[in-house]
Amino acid sequence: MGEWTNDGLIRFSDSVPAFVDGRDSPRAFLERCLDAIDAREGEVKAFVTLNRDGARAAADASNERYRAGRVLSPVDGCPIGAKDIIETADMPTQMNSPLFDGWQSGRDAACIGALRRGGAVILGKTVTTEFAAGRSGPTLNPLDSSRTPGGSSSGSAAAVAAGMVPAALGSQGGGSTIRPASYCGIYGFKPTLGALSMAGIHTVGPTHDHLGLLAGSLEDLWRLARQISDSAVTPGAAGLAGSSSDVPPPVEPRCLVRLYTQGWEELDQDTIAAFENHIGRLRSAGVTVVGREDDPDIAALERELDDGVDGRHEIMSYEMRWPFQEYVTWHGADVSEGLHQRMDHARGITAADYWRLLEKRRVMLDRFAGFAARADGFVTLASSGPAPKGLADTGSRTFLNYWSWLGVPAFSLPLLAVGGLPVGVQLVGYTAADDRLAAHAAWIMRNVD
Amino acid sequence: MGEWTNDGLIRFSDSVPAFVDGRDSPRAFLERCLDAIDAREGEVKAFVTLNRDGARAAADASNERYRAGRVLSPVDGCPIGAKDIIETADMPTQMNSPLFDGWQSGRDAACIGALRRGGAVILGKTVTTEFAAGRSGPTLNPLDSSRTPGGSSSGSAAAVAAGMVPAALGSQGGGSTIRPASYCGIYGFKPTLGALSMAGIHTVGPTHDHLGLLAGSLEDLWRLARQISDSAVTPGAAGLAGSSSDVPPPVEPRCLVRLYTQGWEELDQDTIAAFENHIGRLRSAGVTVVGREDDPDIAALERELDDGVDGRHEIMSYEMRWPFQEYVTWHGADVSEGLHQRMDHARGITAADYWRLLEKRRVMLDRFAGFAARADGFVTLASSGPAPKGLADTGSRTFLNYWSWLGVPAFSLPLLAVGGLPVGVQLVGYTAADDRLAAHAAWIMRNVD
Repeated sequence: MGEWTNDGLIRFSDSVPAFVDGRDSPRAFLERCLDAIDAREGEVKAFVTLNRDGARAAADASNERYRAGRVLSPVDGCPIGAKDIIETADMPTQMNSPLFDGWQSGRDAACIGALRRGGAVILGKTVTTEFAAGRSGPTLNPLDSSRTPGGSSSGSAAAVAAGMVPAALGSQGGGSTIRPASYCGIYGFKPTLGALSMAGIHTVGPTHDHLGLLAGSLEDLWRLARQISDSAVTPGAAGLAGSSSDVPPPVEPRCLVRLYTQGWEELDQDTIAAFENHIGRLRSAGVTVVGREDDPDIAALERELDDGVDGRHEIMSYEMRWPFQEYVTWHGADVSEGLHQRMDHARGITAADYWRLLEKRRVMLDRFAGFAARADGFVTLASSGPAPKGLADTGSRTFLNYWSWLGVPAFSLPLLAVGGLPVGVQLVGYTAADDRLAAHAAWIMRNVD
Repeated sequence: MGEWTNDGLIRFSDSVPAFVDGRDSPRAFLERCLDAIDAREGEVKAFVTLNRDGARAAADASNERYRAGRVLSPVDGCPIGAKDIIETADMPTQMNSPLFDGWQSGRDAACIGALRRGGAVILGKTVTTEFAAGRSGPTLNPLDSSRTPGGSSSGSAAAVAAGMVPAALGSQGGGSTIRPASYCGIYGFKPTLGALSMAGIHTVGPTHDHLGLLAGSLEDLWRLARQISDSAVTPGAAGLAGSSSDVPPPVEPRCLVRLYTQGWEELDQDTIAAFENHIGRLRSAGVTVVGREDDPDIAALERELDDGVDGRHEIMSYEMRWPFQEYVTWHGADVSEGLHQRMDHARGITAADYWRLLEKRRVMLDRFAGFAARADGFVTLASSGPAPKGLADTGSRTFLNYWSWLGVPAFSLPLLAVGGLPVGVQLVGYTAADDRLAAHAAWIMRNVD
């Protein structure tokens, strides 16, 4: 394929059998993570806070559970990084904002509590852009230190890509999980809106805030998501679809819709070629792939998606008025210019505009759901090419906004190489059918390289 | 009627014309509030924190606006008390829990920010039960110091009843606004679930958390609610119904359903007599009042309400796992025994139970909404009689749980006297029809004493 490799990625699930039979242990696994951190963190800058002592104690306790045959969950012993907008009882949560310098909430976010109850080892807090919505952090792309890792879940993606942790938590309201997964050559998963609790995570816009997962394997992604769903309340929602704690067995998609959408205009020829090549391999593997050139309904769907997707930005801007207008009012000098501008824009949006945009989204989601009768999902890019140079810009989210807007599940699969750098293939599914989408993702990873 | 009077209540709206023509001023109004606080706060204990200097500065700024004819909103200059689970940028938010001793969030809750943008004067933080869910506070009922003011919005109701503020903010997940309004002889309003933002207010259960308003008049209640709805984002919702900033003009209800429900068993004969007398006066005023004795559908509705309402407690217990399980885990010694027990209970509730209970609620809400074709609303009691003796128990919420469970709007109207103490009449309406319900409440207050 290309020059980049993900040989440095670590897969927690693969080690569990060795924990069980005593050839390996969670503590030894953690030490390998800490070694990778010692080797690369000085350059990559993925973490804001590390809790080495706490993690070692948690790993030792996990060792004991494997020895005693009393493992708490399939993620028992798994080291985790958590984006620094996610509250942790034993580490500060600082939002990459001076407003939260050293802030200790004294409690775990719902997702962190759930992972801890499953025996996971909460190793550190990872770099986020300011409140996952403003200025960028210092994290570099571990595959090319001249490039962004993507944002806003910058540190979580970089920590996984650098082999420092097998998995990390992020969030997504636009492209904040799928984009860094694409740029860093790892797996990303943005579940259905509301399927996993956002409680104890700083809000950007409640109708678009998703928990995001980043990992070195599909299996690890899924196990984390399942443990969070099983142990944390998801208010007003049914949780993650299905019940299997392992990633669902591979299921061949009969038909996928390929989407161009307006992001296609942003692509360089190499990215187009790599993606077309992937579509060819999907077809060779037996999957029917249809696009706007085959079906006027798909062409109409693309137009409607493109026509409506700006609503995401407007809805989020409006919702951001709380708490960002508060921060601007009370602590304006410590808030980035970008957030000031966003609030200036937000003040011009009326409640009537907002309600109309929510209604438009609802209609679009119904329309999108109607495709379930003819296609198992949608295949598109997970970013507009490889990671751009520099750190200030965390990259385009054109290919990603649609799915944050509609709240449907999406995976980034590290399948393409463009100019020696990774680009993800994005697989998009239907509301509350995350398990079926995962089964198709597993099939593609096994059968389409 | 009885021995209690609400002559001590202050009505902000009544003073506004005098602000406009210069006979009175927001600062003078505030000083009268501070005088009432000086006179009674030592006994009543309604406040945790008072910001006299900040309030005086805000009132002076309001004076200037009235003088200049540049008033910000119909609540410009209105002194407000806020339950101490509601974040304020200029005062600590302490939740009546040692876990939040002295906590400064540095931002206003969405509702507080909205009121401040409308020129309201945020005077102080009022006593709440622990997190609006646990142990009681020290507040006494201003009408009888041997009795509870009700909870959990204890201090907000007492401050209004003692004439210390014209209006205060509370919350309700069971009976926490309507009950103290009833016990304190003031007006209470629990709007439709989601109509007013809960952002920046400590959660109990997200599918049941309502902002609540307490005031000395219907007009003040409505003006506050409108300003909050107009200026604060209500994520995913349309805000408070209608557009009038004044309370809607009185509209005679053609037909009201009187409900007994299981709370009827808790009543003493005097409360029954006072309520029956009120029903008689409603009829004399021309309102058709029908009950389970008139219509088997109403009898069936009452059975279904009684059969389902325990779901409220279970849903909330389940949702309370975050953050209350966190508090028990990390700070257990500082959490009340009641909350420990609630978490012990919550751990036995499964996600499947929870989902089933949410579905049952949804079905019940549809059934309830079906009555809109035949009745303008429902009339029942706002508490199981007058305030009980003592402070440990904030009283029964049997008459209140239904409406918190279904998320429909409810008013407590200070219409009855039982044994020299107030008891509220509760008027209950339909989802997102808060404005129509307010119009009926206004008609009843004018035509049925």
